Amino acid sequence: MKDYNKITSLFKRKGFIWGPSPEIYEGGLAGFYDLGPLGTLLFNNIANTLRAAFFEEKYYEITAPIIMPKKVWEASGHAGGFTDPLVKCTKCGAYFRSDKLITEAHPKEEVDGLTLKEYDTKIDKLGIKCLTCKGQLSKSEPINMMLKTVIGVNTEAFLRPETATTTYLPFKRYYDFFRNKLPFSVFQLGKAFRNEISPRQGLLRLREFNQAEAQLFIFKGEKNKFEEFKEHEKDELPLVTYKAQEKNKFKPVKIKLKEAISKKIIQNKAYATSLAIAYNTIIELGLKEERIRIRQHHPNERAFYALDAWDIEYKTDCFGWVELAGVHDRGDYDLTQHAKYSGQDLSVKNNGKNEVPHILEIAMGVERLLYITLEQAYEEEKERTVLKIPLVLAPIEVKVLPLMKKDGLAEKADEVYELMLDQGLYAEYDETGSIGRRYRRADEEGVPFCITIDHDTLKDESVTVRDRDSMKQTRVKISELDEFLDMALEGEIDF
Amino acid sequence: MKDYNKITSLFKRKGFIWGPSPEIYEGGLAGFYDLGPLGTLLFNNIANTLRAAFFEEKYYEITAPIIMPKKVWEASGHAGGFTDPLVKCTKCGAYFRSDKLITEAHPKEEVDGLTLKEYDTKIDKLGIKCLTCKGQLSKSEPINMMLKTVIGVNTEAFLRPETATTTYLPFKRYYDFFRNKLPFSVFQLGKAFRNEISPRQGLLRLREFNQAEAQLFIFKGEKNKFEEFKEHEKDELPLVTYKAQEKNKFKPVKIKLKEAISKKIIQNKAYATSLAIAYNTIIELGLKEERIRIRQHHPNERAFYALDAWDIEYKTDCFGWVELAGVHDRGDYDLTQHAKYSGQDLSVKNNGKNEVPHILEIAMGVERLLYITLEQAYEEEKERTVLKIPLVLAPIEVKVLPLMKKDGLAEKADEVYELMLDQGLYAEYDETGSIGRRYRRADEEGVPFCITIDHDTLKDESVTVRDRDSMKQTRVKISELDEFLDMALEGEIDF
Repeated sequence: MKDYNKITSLFKRKGFIWGPSPEIYEGGLAGFYDLGPLGTLLFNNIANTLRAAFFEEKYYEITAPIIMPKKVWEASGHAGGFTDPLVKCTKCGAYFRSDKLITEAHPKEEVDGLTLKEYDTKIDKLGIKCLTCKGQLSKSEPINMMLKTVIGVNTEAFLRPETATTTYLPFKRYYDFFRNKLPFSVFQLGKAFRNEISPRQGLLRLREFNQAEAQLFIFKGEKNKFEEFKEHEKDELPLVTYKAQEKNKFKPVKIKLKEAISKKIIQNKAYATSLAIAYNTIIELGLKEERIRIRQHHPNERAFYALDAWDIEYKTDCFGWVELAGVHDRGDYDLTQHAKYSGQDLSVKNNGKNEVPHILEIAMGVERLLYITLEQAYEEEKERTVLKIPLVLAPIEVKVLPLMKKDGLAEKADEVYELMLDQGLYAEYDETGSIGRRYRRADEEGVPFCITIDHDTLKDESVTVRDRDSMKQTRVKISELDEFLDMALEGEIDF
Repeated sequence: MKDYNKITSLFKRKGFIWGPSPEIYEGGLAGFYDLGPLGTLLFNNIANTLRAAFFEEKYYEITAPIIMPKKVWEASGHAGGFTDPLVKCTKCGAYFRSDKLITEAHPKEEVDGLTLKEYDTKIDKLGIKCLTCKGQLSKSEPINMMLKTVIGVNTEAFLRPETATTTYLPFKRYYDFFRNKLPFSVFQLGKAFRNEISPRQGLLRLREFNQAEAQLFIFKGEKNKFEEFKEHEKDELPLVTYKAQEKNKFKPVKIKLKEAISKKIIQNKAYATSLAIAYNTIIELGLKEERIRIRQHHPNERAFYALDAWDIEYKTDCFGWVELAGVHDRGDYDLTQHAKYSGQDLSVKNNGKNEVPHILEIAMGVERLLYITLEQAYEEEKERTVLKIPLVLAPIEVKVLPLMKKDGLAEKADEVYELMLDQGLYAEYDETGSIGRRYRRADEEGVPFCITIDHDTLKDESVTVRDRDSMKQTRVKISELDEFLDMALEGEIDF
């Protein structure tokens, strides 16, 4: 098992994640973080991998504003129901989340899905008082998790708590863009904000974070005739159905999608395809299959409008199972709501009749992927700590190291470094400290390949390339470095 | 000259920019826009080009939160001074910006830099009343342009009005990351928000927008010994000094930076290098040299702490000269302020003495670059409208078109399309409408190259590649398409 404080202290020290931010102002605000230079490169690589993966599946990325007027959130349901229960100390004025307060004092108490009154009864019965001053607590009140602001002088607006709602709204624009043909799919990657009252779990529950959410718009009657399914029918997914869970079976069973459809484990081909795309994308990011399961929500666990819902979950070392992605069949709920609240017709023609299409949605949290990538990458070996970040995501791809500064080795190394930059690689030059120390530094930064320039280089124009994971080394001609690294970064070189 | 309404209606229709958003809710909120599928691809290409350009100059990207507590903005000066003057109608309650109100009624009135009292005197003297109901107007009051929100239950916070301030704060973290050696440089690309009371100029003045801001941290005494200057001393920049402007000369003069330094037109080498990096990056994005000038701020025009400031400006067709980038020597102002307000020591050792470094800053607006790229790209020719988007930024790089659907041409085209996707190209497949119409469609979308599959393709495994700009065509073997397009997208093929 990995220790959260120990691993995040490395992430901090190496410039991945700093915070809470702004650190210099009284230690920062809970739930807000900086990504340092390596964290930002890693984030960009994750984002661009997601973008490319979704584009390949014909999801077109769009960008909507973070801020939207109140009416949008009334339609989506967030203005009404998106709340946390809160109590206030009647003596010192401190606030606490009712549910967290209960489980903190009594970890075994069940608090999921309680009403406000039920929280208060429990707090009373268990004799819970203010954690700060032991004062009497107020009754629980719902507090909305959206951040409010004012546009102009008096237009109430909210920062989006998810990208999804903002993606649904230009539906008619998409319809034009895709030349009046369904199904089509869009994708958005951007910031969202949730005013968690007491953010916990470090990087897993943030107040400011990025989501990558993808939507397939499709007519109800087409969901089981979805052509793209053919490309995924042989994909094997590690499923845990809600019925298995009812029998307390949580071990995933690998099932081919074709079989899952014929056995009605998954309701339709379009939904199965969405699940496959989400799962394959996560595997492409380098997360380990053996730590992943796809768990179906129990019908009671789903939103009232949701027709089906599965979560892709990952077994972390520090937090147990966590959600990586949710895949939801939202039916025609969203477009129907926004049609009603905006007064605009959001139906389109299907075989001569007006129809509001369904939305199948994939939702992921990007910082969560980032944290889990780092947690998985962290390894302590006998003589070193190393971040085995997947090649496709490595922030710095290659480091160039002169064995020593003198004898013209530094100049030669600088030449090779410039060559790497010209090739478009994310390269760094490092001449400080012993070569062993520089290798350790590169290991801790997750740099897959180090290039060492030594005295032989000056004679034979070749360099030593060291592999991060195996620590093995091989000799390569400078003139062939270009091609060698391209292959190495694709994982095609066996050291 | 290009007509703003005409060109933006094309941008809307083709899926670049939609808004104000959310359009379906009462026509949206002024100053907020969606980027459609092509707009988002274009945005990503601009962002990634900026990222690569800055990384090559050793600027490391970082990411700070959008939301920061009030104290940060008190330190930066935004909580106090970042205001617009506002009047309210005492009868109907409508709000107006005092300065805009005056210039709208009397375009020749000078309103820059007036005090609140001076606005009111002018409004009185000119007899200006409420534009809505002719009611009497209140006295001008300053309204802060930052968007306010509340974190937790009662922590006042603001959405950043610029990325820069949030970039300064982790200075000590950078200092560790760069192993205690100055100078070093960082970069941030992300959202910022300004509550413009009446946003005008469409896409040039938004309430929600992205900035790309880059900072060089350097000791005062090192500014004129900056090593990287050597790589830029021969760069020729189109400068307009403030002294030239005093003589009413606004035509830029091309000057080598070495000369600009020796003649003391630019104060130091580090600043000259920042200017060169900003200018070269803009040229790399494909903006036309002949439309660009670099204009120095008059000492009276600068913030009181600024040691020097030049703007890179572009002559648009629809709005005249607009600022593309500002390059500012901010001295030690920011770190000194944040040290004072946070109570943290932000000085570092320089030759044994503690010293607060200076910041040289490059600031760009990303949506502005996006709009200007599109405006510049728009051309009406005799028989077509075409977006000559620079190759490096083209949203869709290649379209694959079967001459007709039958005879197996559609299947062959689909094969070629999949080949293009596998190669990592942003490719589209289009089989709808006559080939001429599909070429026009590709032109309006700024697609640089169309690949047509015809009956000969089935015989000789070659295709026609059409060049967007020249409309010339050439025949290429499918097996060589890969390499051909790589070169074509680098601008290395002469059609």
